[in-house]
Amino acid sequence: MTNNKPKNRLTAQAYIDGVLSGDRVILSRAITVIESHLESDKALAKTIIQAILPASGNSIRIGITGVPGVGKSTFIEAFGKHLINQGHKVAVLSIDPSSQRSKGSILGDKTRMEALSTLERAYIRASASGDTLGGVANKTAESMLLCEAAGYNVILIETVGVGQSETAVYGMTDFFLLLMLAGAGDELQGIKKGIMEMADMLVINKADGDNIKKSDLARLQYQNALHIFPPSESGWEKVVTTASSTKNTGIDTVWNTILNYQALVTENGYFIKNRQHQNIRWMYDTINNELKQLFYGSEAITKELLILEKDVISSKISPLKAANSVIEMFKKRL
Amino acid sequence: MTNNKPKNRLTAQAYIDGVLSGDRVILSRAITVIESHLESDKALAKTIIQAILPASGNSIRIGITGVPGVGKSTFIEAFGKHLINQGHKVAVLSIDPSSQRSKGSILGDKTRMEALSTLERAYIRASASGDTLGGVANKTAESMLLCEAAGYNVILIETVGVGQSETAVYGMTDFFLLLMLAGAGDELQGIKKGIMEMADMLVINKADGDNIKKSDLARLQYQNALHIFPPSESGWEKVVTTASSTKNTGIDTVWNTILNYQALVTENGYFIKNRQHQNIRWMYDTINNELKQLFYGSEAITKELLILEKDVISSKISPLKAANSVIEMFKKRL
Repeated sequence: MTNNKPKNRLTAQAYIDGVLSGDRVILSRAITVIESHLESDKALAKTIIQAILPASGNSIRIGITGVPGVGKSTFIEAFGKHLINQGHKVAVLSIDPSSQRSKGSILGDKTRMEALSTLERAYIRASASGDTLGGVANKTAESMLLCEAAGYNVILIETVGVGQSETAVYGMTDFFLLLMLAGAGDELQGIKKGIMEMADMLVINKADGDNIKKSDLARLQYQNALHIFPPSESGWEKVVTTASSTKNTGIDTVWNTILNYQALVTENGYFIKNRQHQNIRWMYDTINNELKQLFYGSEAITKELLILEKDVISSKISPLKAANSVIEMFKKRL
Repeated sequence: MTNNKPKNRLTAQAYIDGVLSGDRVILSRAITVIESHLESDKALAKTIIQAILPASGNSIRIGITGVPGVGKSTFIEAFGKHLINQGHKVAVLSIDPSSQRSKGSILGDKTRMEALSTLERAYIRASASGDTLGGVANKTAESMLLCEAAGYNVILIETVGVGQSETAVYGMTDFFLLLMLAGAGDELQGIKKGIMEMADMLVINKADGDNIKKSDLARLQYQNALHIFPPSESGWEKVVTTASSTKNTGIDTVWNTILNYQALVTENGYFIKNRQHQNIRWMYDTINNELKQLFYGSEAITKELLILEKDVISSKISPLKAANSVIEMFKKRL
């Protein structure tokens, strides 16, 4: 459990004050602490989050997904600028689920959303990849709270539509937006029924030039297809629109739709109910992570596991017996 | 941690003796103990598995997947009968990943594989659903060991191609077989690249009647497409064939291909290496399950969690603080 404390760390109070005053540089450094794997940073991260919690929550949290190529970055850039022009402060957090087999990074392009990132009222951050998805998601949720405490009142959480990360993002946002393309079948877009079901809004992107007619047709088709889904618990009926991020059309409709959604679910109580459920889930996720940390964070356990791995490989001990022996050791040591 | 012990349980020794003597009824009852959530059954299950472990392992473990409608049951029936005719004893275990949202069961049809199930040298079992996938997979792996100890030397583990269960099955088998249909695009079959990558063999099923030409064409297409995959660690080149489960053609080729695979990987050492890695993974899966059991199996913790849930919902306490407090409680009590 011993790690050298990084020399460039501030005091907890400096992070807290910096975040609460909306200092972007301190916000970034605080998120770095949150994403850190160092033992000394974990305690620091907890202190920071506990302190800023009362100042968090005052935002609309929007999940945005869609397969690579759908134009997510361009859309978020156009959407973000629109929001900033309306007087909002916008934070964009990206979840990058590296492929389990290849460990390749899907995002990683640091020059994304360049125009947006230069704006004073925007904050853009890609989450550290290579971690377990659950870990990344939990850290993104915590980063979101920091952004809220720093005064960002629209949080966009972006993910690539390749599997589990959408569920994680769905579990931490108020509104879920799915970007699509006209002309490509659902299959080609890798859109699973489950993602369509989670989405509150489908936006057919790149609806410009020769693509306008196709996009309108796709909009009608999706609108009809959406009837197959059971009515949502939120009482909201999914909306399908078209947009062009490059021509800047339809972007205002997206935001107005989200405002309509917010009005409805605030009125009918679903907004708060959904956040309550998300908090419960968050409590359990934290417990499960802490539990693993308690076990795998122990040096003695780690050493014993290395020995047991060798013994399992040489068939000296069965996997089950090995597991039981180290669990017994854990019980005694704790 | 108190549960009433079910009255119809045998002694551990009776289960062990019954399984080792190949008694199908006792085998079924032993698997029921393994799948049980009762506290008293968990200790019993551990005792049984520890005792039969030395007699396990002497089988070829074959994972079989494919989307619903591909004809898995019919294929397994034809394949199983072929194996039995060759003198083998065949166990079929099914993993049924219930959809997370709908909780609906995909298998559940108890009349499946009726002809096969009446054969003396066959054993068929569908895993309990509704559990976490990890839990079901671990239990399937343990059931597999019991089947091996009972003398079954070919284990077929069947899953539906809808997401994560393939990875779990891949993680516990020696050979992974993907059933496909001709004429349907990959997209339509919901086949993700990852599953193709895991597969050692692609079998285009329903290659009969009008479908033969289409199936042969599909075989060639897949054969060409497979070149995109990096060479497998096993040194095996994926094989594509066609089969008809109803006309009983191509079934022998499937088995001969598996025998070729077995010869290759026994020779080059991959067979044992792969099982060693699977055992390590199994050790960690067991540890993680036990860890959760240690925590969530405690009555005091469960009671506290109910209180904390209410407090989180009423915003009396933050999810993080709630998680920390119950983790502290766990540390003290253990």
